[in-house]
Amino acid sequence: MRNLVAAALVFSSGLAFADEGQWQPYQMPSIADKLKARGIDIPAEQLADLTRHPMNAVVGLGYCTASFVSPQGLVVTNHHCAYKAIQYNSSKEKNYLADGFLATSMDKEPSAGPNERLYVTEAVTDVSAKVTDGLPLEPLERVEAIESRQKAIIKECESDDNYRCAVRSFHNGLEYYLIKQLMIRDVRLVYAPPESVGSYGGDIDNYEYPRHSGDFTFLRAYVGKDGKPADFSESNIPYQPKSFLKVNASGVKAGDGVFVAGYPGSTSRYRLTTELEFASNWLYPTDAKRFQSRIDTIEAMGAENAELAIKYAGTVAGMANRMKKLNGLLDGFKATDITAIKRKQEQEFMAWYASHGDAKQMDELKALIIESQQQYQTNYYFVNAQSSDLLGAANSLYRLAKEKQKPDAEREQGYQERDLKMFADKLKRIDKSFDVRVDKVLWQADIESYLAQPNRVAVLDEQLNLSDSAALGSKLDSLYGATSLIDQATRLGWMDKSPAEFEQSSDPFIKLAVALYDTRMAQEKAEKTLDGKLSIARPAMMKAIIAFNKDKGLPVYPDANGTLRITYGMVDGYQSRDALYKQPFTKLDGIVAKHTGVEPFNAPQKVLDAIKAGNLGSHKVDDLYPDARSFICKLFSCLDKPEAFGSVPVNFLSSVDTTGGNSGSPVFNGKGELVGLNFDSTYEAITKDWFFNPEITRAIHVDIRYILWMMDKVDNAQNLLSEMDLVRN
Amino acid sequence: MRNLVAAALVFSSGLAFADEGQWQPYQMPSIADKLKARGIDIPAEQLADLTRHPMNAVVGLGYCTASFVSPQGLVVTNHHCAYKAIQYNSSKEKNYLADGFLATSMDKEPSAGPNERLYVTEAVTDVSAKVTDGLPLEPLERVEAIESRQKAIIKECESDDNYRCAVRSFHNGLEYYLIKQLMIRDVRLVYAPPESVGSYGGDIDNYEYPRHSGDFTFLRAYVGKDGKPADFSESNIPYQPKSFLKVNASGVKAGDGVFVAGYPGSTSRYRLTTELEFASNWLYPTDAKRFQSRIDTIEAMGAENAELAIKYAGTVAGMANRMKKLNGLLDGFKATDITAIKRKQEQEFMAWYASHGDAKQMDELKALIIESQQQYQTNYYFVNAQSSDLLGAANSLYRLAKEKQKPDAEREQGYQERDLKMFADKLKRIDKSFDVRVDKVLWQADIESYLAQPNRVAVLDEQLNLSDSAALGSKLDSLYGATSLIDQATRLGWMDKSPAEFEQSSDPFIKLAVALYDTRMAQEKAEKTLDGKLSIARPAMMKAIIAFNKDKGLPVYPDANGTLRITYGMVDGYQSRDALYKQPFTKLDGIVAKHTGVEPFNAPQKVLDAIKAGNLGSHKVDDLYPDARSFICKLFSCLDKPEAFGSVPVNFLSSVDTTGGNSGSPVFNGKGELVGLNFDSTYEAITKDWFFNPEITRAIHVDIRYILWMMDKVDNAQNLLSEMDLVRN
Repeated sequence: MRNLVAAALVFSSGLAFADEGQWQPYQMPSIADKLKARGIDIPAEQLADLTRHPMNAVVGLGYCTASFVSPQGLVVTNHHCAYKAIQYNSSKEKNYLADGFLATSMDKEPSAGPNERLYVTEAVTDVSAKVTDGLPLEPLERVEAIESRQKAIIKECESDDNYRCAVRSFHNGLEYYLIKQLMIRDVRLVYAPPESVGSYGGDIDNYEYPRHSGDFTFLRAYVGKDGKPADFSESNIPYQPKSFLKVNASGVKAGDGVFVAGYPGSTSRYRLTTELEFASNWLYPTDAKRFQSRIDTIEAMGAENAELAIKYAGTVAGMANRMKKLNGLLDGFKATDITAIKRKQEQEFMAWYASHGDAKQMDELKALIIESQQQYQTNYYFVNAQSSDLLGAANSLYRLAKEKQKPDAEREQGYQERDLKMFADKLKRIDKSFDVRVDKVLWQADIESYLAQPNRVAVLDEQLNLSDSAALGSKLDSLYGATSLIDQATRLGWMDKSPAEFEQSSDPFIKLAVALYDTRMAQEKAEKTLDGKLSIARPAMMKAIIAFNKDKGLPVYPDANGTLRITYGMVDGYQSRDALYKQPFTKLDGIVAKHTGVEPFNAPQKVLDAIKAGNLGSHKVDDLYPDARSFICKLFSCLDKPEAFGSVPVNFLSSVDTTGGNSGSPVFNGKGELVGLNFDSTYEAITKDWFFNPEITRAIHVDIRYILWMMDKVDNAQNLLSEMDLVRN
Repeated sequence: MRNLVAAALVFSSGLAFADEGQWQPYQMPSIADKLKARGIDIPAEQLADLTRHPMNAVVGLGYCTASFVSPQGLVVTNHHCAYKAIQYNSSKEKNYLADGFLATSMDKEPSAGPNERLYVTEAVTDVSAKVTDGLPLEPLERVEAIESRQKAIIKECESDDNYRCAVRSFHNGLEYYLIKQLMIRDVRLVYAPPESVGSYGGDIDNYEYPRHSGDFTFLRAYVGKDGKPADFSESNIPYQPKSFLKVNASGVKAGDGVFVAGYPGSTSRYRLTTELEFASNWLYPTDAKRFQSRIDTIEAMGAENAELAIKYAGTVAGMANRMKKLNGLLDGFKATDITAIKRKQEQEFMAWYASHGDAKQMDELKALIIESQQQYQTNYYFVNAQSSDLLGAANSLYRLAKEKQKPDAEREQGYQERDLKMFADKLKRIDKSFDVRVDKVLWQADIESYLAQPNRVAVLDEQLNLSDSAALGSKLDSLYGATSLIDQATRLGWMDKSPAEFEQSSDPFIKLAVALYDTRMAQEKAEKTLDGKLSIARPAMMKAIIAFNKDKGLPVYPDANGTLRITYGMVDGYQSRDALYKQPFTKLDGIVAKHTGVEPFNAPQKVLDAIKAGNLGSHKVDDLYPDARSFICKLFSCLDKPEAFGSVPVNFLSSVDTTGGNSGSPVFNGKGELVGLNFDSTYEAITKDWFFNPEITRAIHVDIRYILWMMDKVDNAQNLLSEMDLVRN
């Protein structure tokens, strides 16, 4: 049980200070002393209030974080977060991905695409009582009641179309909060550097440091003339946010306190040791093996067919990213015995729990978790044996037809009226990276893995005639030959059909989906039943963990769940390996040193020229380690005459606690001014999803001075610079 | 022209201090102030005297450096320097390479092999006048006169068989010194760690840092009962050196001054810019291409034939090492524009030279150098087209027969009576890494490269019938099929045959050697003629460079030439890349972190166990950065509670100026006590053969504390520990 850094601090590592925690904004006053000690002077109460500056300037993109930086709705986020918006506007003739883009005036700002959204969190309300009071104890009924109550709360909240609402579980179901977000749906592209700046180093440097990425892009929020969200229209006007961030052009230096606000997606810090063991011993290695095999397959096929390679480039990049994360997790577990650390923490908690709770409850929870792991393992190969994109579409479509038989409020989440636009988008997106040959080869490999293990599902075996495994290839060929689901319009057409029409269809993928339906539903029911049991056991244990920490005077932050959080830390390097220290700032010279001219190390000539010309302006920094330098130089590498930093900082490290979803998050100095954008973590830090090791966990940020230098000295984006509120220390 | 660091210091970098220089011991008083400033307290005059401690404890192995560390002739050097001695004593049953070796008493010390030698430099005498006074001006006569005078001096010096003498050119022929070395020829193996310690990290870590190599081995010198060198005999007794080194078990810490004595092989620091350009633009890339192709060929053949792979393992390792060095040179030239630096220095020198010398002389030297480069390029492919080991042997053997016609004193060096043992050894060694198939494929590739360029040699074309290039393969097959040189005894037999016997031989390789002889001799004559011209031009320019520096009050050290030198520096890390700082000490934990169980990262269990048990004894160091730590920690990665070093240092870095041949060199503290063994350089430092960049040039040393810990806590070599004079700070 990851009963907090706090426990680690007090019992294990002896560190008096660790910058761990993805805190709910309302919790900030409870850690006010820690913020103060890190030099973060903005009052904790101010950060707790989402209606006040600077938190009301922080916005979500659905999968990333962004922030307002001008009174005219100018928004800054990562280049990789705005990738689709740039791609949407790119063509062979005007390739904004390759060349970058700058709108020199507002009338030249194109739409970022019909699906781009900006979410401004306006209220976070505790609805725990509404969701959990008097819930039935029968597991399945309980889960369904929780779902039904959540849907009712959301429906009420979304009575105004301009809002998108969600009810999120915190502390494993101990608490529920309603998140109400204003949804701006006219988003435009303003300024993006070339991809060779925005993701300099590409996949090779992904999760790596020293890093030299200009991972930033500017967007702008537009609304109707009435100031309310509206669909894209030429007559829309820039949105005037309630506040926007000041930009501090002086940036930060080593040792400065910083904080980051954003939407971290998911962490597993309070999971039991047995859950970590399952992940590290079975789940991650098994997934890694499957992913690597899929990547190898697609790359081998792509090597012989350039068109296919291009089609799957995005898919492979995504899988390569997941592979690097999986490898980082597995390498991290090898480097640090996190299981032993967590076991020790769990023992400490259990010692306390012996006199504060019912030890049997822990045994029951463990038994449920083991049951759920077994359930996952049993279904794993069957789930993968449905990995064809076409079968996935058929499964979802038939489920939709079934769900549509119910009143909207009773439908499964994902199949309600509010979900149908996204449902259709997903069906359309298949075309972008689909090739029958690839889909078939990957699917066949998954079926073969399924055939090589004992947990068989009769209906699948029958439908695909798997008793004759030698005939599998030709069987699948016949499916692809006979389906019409490859056609997008046909796929979308099925969204409006009745269950009976599915049941009468001769399309082999539709037929297979219909045949599998009862089995899939039975599995879902079994999972929900187990979830129902866990929905009692987990919150009870979490309550005890919180009490355990309260006994020590320590607050507890919930695992990440895609909701707005604040994390704080210090600008700081780290010991990467024995005798290898990574310093907290990279500089322009490093871009030149990495430049080979070959992607992903193909810095644009204009950047190289500006560096070579020493055209650094006021963005140049002479020293980022001012106090330490003379002393360090005496003993280390500077010999007698220390060299100053003398460059523009490009990226920097801090000890803030982030994870996926924090991309694009504003990095604030102690006064709450923008000094950078979060965009990645170091490879050594990947295991932080399970355990935050303060010695090696570092987030990687784009330095605001690099962004301003690019705008000022390379791309001449003076129109945007003058729109922002630039301050200096 | 690399007219010295000194010039770089004063004009370019502005650094007040650079630890450059491979100084002749006699020069030490001229840099006494620099030694003093680095905290090296031992008097410079003492270091200048080869008959005094500690310099008389420094010995050569012919290709490496070593030092006496006990009154009983105990010698310490690198594991890789003693590799052949360990291999010589290893068998399947007692595999000392794999398992290590420790003689628990002197009677258990086996011979290191009949060819092992220890050379104690007893005198270095300036013989410049004897070699150069009144030399003829005709180039060929001049070269032959220089050679003849050198041979005469050597002959006189070697009148006592126990001495080996050499006359070496310094400053490109400006000065000549006679080196007189006592040659000990009964050398025994005493203590070697397993290869998995001695070259932990193997080829992968070669030239890399952070490093964790226990690259040390102990040997012992034996002499006859009369105290004089003798062939191996059971009745020999340990040699009592005139002095031996104290071993300082406290080691060094960051910032400490150190110095290193040893036999660096070759550097090119005073070459003209045009010579650097030739090397970086043509020679290195051309060699790298050929080497990589040869490595790839052997590896591909070895992949299909394990026996062949084993046979060529040593050859491939050597070529891989050369490839890494070539790549390091080429990468280094990319990273730093050394050509521009040298051009600037050359301009500064020329500005001075305009009023102190004859600018025409520089033009003449440049013209000669360009001529010599063209000569090299012209002959390059023809030389390679004789790369077969068998043809090489045949060429040397016929040359020997020819030279033997002359009185010994008139023979070419390498063919005199004193050289014949080594000549025979070389012929024997062919067997160890020879396979007809490999020899043929590599040779054929070289001939094909020769065929693809215009500089053809008629006799070679005729002999190998190269007008019919399609038939080349079968032509070579017929050569290998008909030769008897593959047989070692036959090869050795040719050492005693007359030219006439060669000329009548039907062995195809002998016939080819006879046919090529005149062409080869003509080329040699042309080269010697050019050398003769350069033997006037180069020393003249070198004299000017020395005067140029003298004007600035700066001494000049000569390029490395395999003679005894002293270099000094500081224990220090370095900035490896932007934001990547390499700290000066590695520790035991790093061995565990690198351990995979798979060679070359297969640390012995006994080492892992001792580390895990914390069995560090008095070798543990709590802090190697004592003064800096608290301050650095405040600003960098230690958070609030700094962690101490708390381990045994394994390897460390210093800024001393070394090159190949310095392997095994003792690293001294400021008092002249042994604190480590030099064994490698960092990758970034490889270009130091041309230009010493004080910011990144670091040598890698084994820390004495790791050696002592291995002896004390892992291998229980108490017998040796008690033999040494261990001191502490």
